[in-house]
Amino acid sequence: MGRVVVEVMPKPEILDPQGKAVVGALPRLGFTQFVGVRQGKRFELEVEGDVTPEILAAARQAAETMLSNPIIEDVVNVFEAEVSA
Amino acid sequence: MGRVVVEVMPKPEILDPQGKAVVGALPRLGFTQFVGVRQGKRFELEVEGDVTPEILAAARQAAETMLSNPIIEDVVNVFEAEVSA
Repeated sequence: MGRVVVEVMPKPEILDPQGKAVVGALPRLGFTQFVGVRQGKRFELEVEGDVTPEILAAARQAAETMLSNPIIEDVVNVFEAEVSA
Repeated sequence: MGRVVVEVMPKPEILDPQGKAVVGALPRLGFTQFVGVRQGKRFELEVEGDVTPEILAAARQAAETMLSNPIIEDVVNVFEAEVSA
């Protein structure tokens, strides 16, 4: 069983209302260290068998076409994950 | 300017409807390699200055108390990010 991680973040120039909400709430809980927050998505895709270069290429294509909205989001990472559990 | 990444995933025993929707949609787009998908969250927290051990500890605490719901989610990673842009 292999696993591919896909990470998607809002583009820097795009307003990120979820991140804005978090950065506004943090100081109220005493976390005054953080001046900005962006919230994105993290997918774990499972495959039977090993993560081959073909699987990684398919994951990258799925990331660009389905797991992200290329107008407002960037795929920042696609990589094979260590499978622990 | 430093950046801390916090990654949150639904607990393995928790139903993940977003992941289920993705895994159902992938084959319709020709991606038949993937047998399971989990969808979680990825936060980027920005700080002025360097990411110190204290900042990382604060980020870990924020991750456990605010950025995740500990009933249904696990904080899988808290680490300093390379800042590129």
